[in-house]
Amino acid sequence: MRKIEMENVVIDGNFKGFPNDAPATPLGQFSELKWNLLAQDMPFPVAVLQKTAMDQNSVWMRDFIQQSGAFLCPHGKTTMSPQLFRKQLEDGAWGITIATVDQMKICRNHGISPLLLANQLVGQQAIQYVLNELERDPAFEFYCLVDSVEGVETLAKAARQKGLTSPLTVLLEMGIVGGRTGCRTVADALKVAAAIQEAAPYVSLVGVECFEGLVTGDPAIREQKVRDLLELLIEVAQQCAEHQYFASDQILLSAGGSAYYDLVVERFGQVELPVDVKIMVRSGCYLTHDSAVYKNHFKEVLMRSETARNLGIGFQPALEVWALVQSMPEPGLALVTMGKRDVSFDANLPTPLKWYRADHMSVPENLTSDYTITALNDQHGYMKVPLDTPLQIGDLIGFGVSHPCTTFDRWQLMYVVDDHYNVVSGIKTFF
Amino acid sequence: MRKIEMENVVIDGNFKGFPNDAPATPLGQFSELKWNLLAQDMPFPVAVLQKTAMDQNSVWMRDFIQQSGAFLCPHGKTTMSPQLFRKQLEDGAWGITIATVDQMKICRNHGISPLLLANQLVGQQAIQYVLNELERDPAFEFYCLVDSVEGVETLAKAARQKGLTSPLTVLLEMGIVGGRTGCRTVADALKVAAAIQEAAPYVSLVGVECFEGLVTGDPAIREQKVRDLLELLIEVAQQCAEHQYFASDQILLSAGGSAYYDLVVERFGQVELPVDVKIMVRSGCYLTHDSAVYKNHFKEVLMRSETARNLGIGFQPALEVWALVQSMPEPGLALVTMGKRDVSFDANLPTPLKWYRADHMSVPENLTSDYTITALNDQHGYMKVPLDTPLQIGDLIGFGVSHPCTTFDRWQLMYVVDDHYNVVSGIKTFF
Repeated sequence: MRKIEMENVVIDGNFKGFPNDAPATPLGQFSELKWNLLAQDMPFPVAVLQKTAMDQNSVWMRDFIQQSGAFLCPHGKTTMSPQLFRKQLEDGAWGITIATVDQMKICRNHGISPLLLANQLVGQQAIQYVLNELERDPAFEFYCLVDSVEGVETLAKAARQKGLTSPLTVLLEMGIVGGRTGCRTVADALKVAAAIQEAAPYVSLVGVECFEGLVTGDPAIREQKVRDLLELLIEVAQQCAEHQYFASDQILLSAGGSAYYDLVVERFGQVELPVDVKIMVRSGCYLTHDSAVYKNHFKEVLMRSETARNLGIGFQPALEVWALVQSMPEPGLALVTMGKRDVSFDANLPTPLKWYRADHMSVPENLTSDYTITALNDQHGYMKVPLDTPLQIGDLIGFGVSHPCTTFDRWQLMYVVDDHYNVVSGIKTFF
Repeated sequence: MRKIEMENVVIDGNFKGFPNDAPATPLGQFSELKWNLLAQDMPFPVAVLQKTAMDQNSVWMRDFIQQSGAFLCPHGKTTMSPQLFRKQLEDGAWGITIATVDQMKICRNHGISPLLLANQLVGQQAIQYVLNELERDPAFEFYCLVDSVEGVETLAKAARQKGLTSPLTVLLEMGIVGGRTGCRTVADALKVAAAIQEAAPYVSLVGVECFEGLVTGDPAIREQKVRDLLELLIEVAQQCAEHQYFASDQILLSAGGSAYYDLVVERFGQVELPVDVKIMVRSGCYLTHDSAVYKNHFKEVLMRSETARNLGIGFQPALEVWALVQSMPEPGLALVTMGKRDVSFDANLPTPLKWYRADHMSVPENLTSDYTITALNDQHGYMKVPLDTPLQIGDLIGFGVSHPCTTFDRWQLMYVVDDHYNVVSGIKTFF
């Protein structure tokens, strides 16, 4: 499949958020539209990315990672936008992380490498596709996880049948009892590592991995759980090194979602192993940040990490969904034109941030915490408002989101805007 | 914008669920692919529509509506698939309901009329687009809701400025105190109706509408709340008729989501008004049905409605998402390759229905209720399994969904399959 040039991809009224009566426009010409959100040049709801905040966040994370001596392989599943992947790579990311082979397809169709599949590689289709890509493009660098002997054997069998000439490079995945994927114990992990050694030259072990982002509890408990998982991972790496299970003298230690990357780089930075260690952090949400769940996680990062505190202004929320007040049917209630189809609701409901009425104000004004979204239907949002609210039907409301991933996947088209809500570019997602 | 012929729309590896190594294929040629889900001809997860169930459901609803003397204007927001809209229209639907003007664009780009916007029409872009469409196509039949005097005045002003030659036809929306949009009282409604009369000849009142599907409580309480709302709607229609607020001698009474349409047609069928009544039911979920929330609603329909009971085999779930077992890291737990990005989770988690292993069985076997999904991450599902489960990594699991709307919007491509999971066609959605 040929590489897609995103600037040539044409957007038309079949995309949510693009006016039907506007001419079909290639993404590369979006700045020429001269549209402005506040002037209602687009239909609502609409999702926008604040360019200033996104650029700042990208630089902040680059600096933080560089100062930590680690590498960044941001999780692409968050945005699934090859245009944003490009930006991340240009801003210093080592590669892109993916969760599925469907996501890998998009990266490959946009020429992106290296790719770290932070997941098991299972299924005939998926395995064959990866092997085909490796065969087609010797320069393609690909990593995936394994957490079972059966998984290793399946990969080895497929690679052998394919006659793969250089091995599938895998990382051992570690997990938490009662948690998600990953070996639970050192003993389990060593069995898988031994199976990888037996699978040579078709599979080779190049590192150890975990995802620590799913811990629950109050901050101290979560921190301890993360630290425990990192220790387990280090113990496995130590033992694999001693058993000479690693295929080379440099290994990857990878962890770090968007909540505890500071703990990851701190602890992995102290590791002493008989092999070289390359630390790979995989945060996906840093680029756009958010207005709730990751906003709170970032406060914790700042409390824990002096490096983070010294890096100046930290992450700013870049992702907003704007909607219209469509009905105010009783005192204290406004319905907005934004629902479950438009914004995430799996980790807090959206936060009303600001409002705007063209003939009433020159710039959007902030909303207080007296304004809250209390529920979402598919296409409606219920907003509690003060009894004396100045809002009227037709007013614009800008919402912050909680959990960027589940907002991105609701938009195939998002606008990038400047500080005055002028459209400066457009991004397409692939979900 | 020219009408799109869906059979010519080309699907390639940039769509989730379509193999990257398969040739780009127009939707009209999907049957020629000779693919089978069980043979893993597609990557997983994948969403499929069972043709037999969908056809049956469509006929059942047509018959039920016909016997009730009502009309069906199915809610398009559920599937957002012009191909399925066509099927619904061919199977006797009067028109298509939409929730947003973004959804209207898709319908118009596929030549679909009449359209009932079961929502307020707000926002400069949205209003202008509707007026442009009405001006461009005199045959285009469009209806929307109003629930405020301000809303009516805004529409009237825009229509007047545009010089609209035939009026915007609107329905008065009624709602429940503490509920969503819609006038709360007869008095409020009559004020809006009076404003519509004043807005002649730019706006005209052609009916009364409500959405009764959001009531909560046990079945008897929900039924009573629905009945109360229908009574309010009838009272408003009665008063509007007496005040001669309606623009013609035939009006629309519209209600009916996918849960209480039987109550709607029963009660509205008994209405005696000084005007003719056309009953318009708007169920969106009947076509695919589901395996949880609407399955339960349908049991209640069968208990309430003799007409429904006499119609033979009722709705069958047509929508399934299939995924692979990717990890079994501890006893009693299997992780599957399906997450929040692939299936609805807002009204129950997905239901494991069946499993399949190619070298082990000829057809999928049912799973018992001992198998349950306990949680979803973005790209992972946590499945509780019996300690002695025969499942292995790599096995296929078929899941039923709860709430079709929030599963459809996670797929731009869905396969229609026969009873043996052979692909017979493909549908594209527009979210």
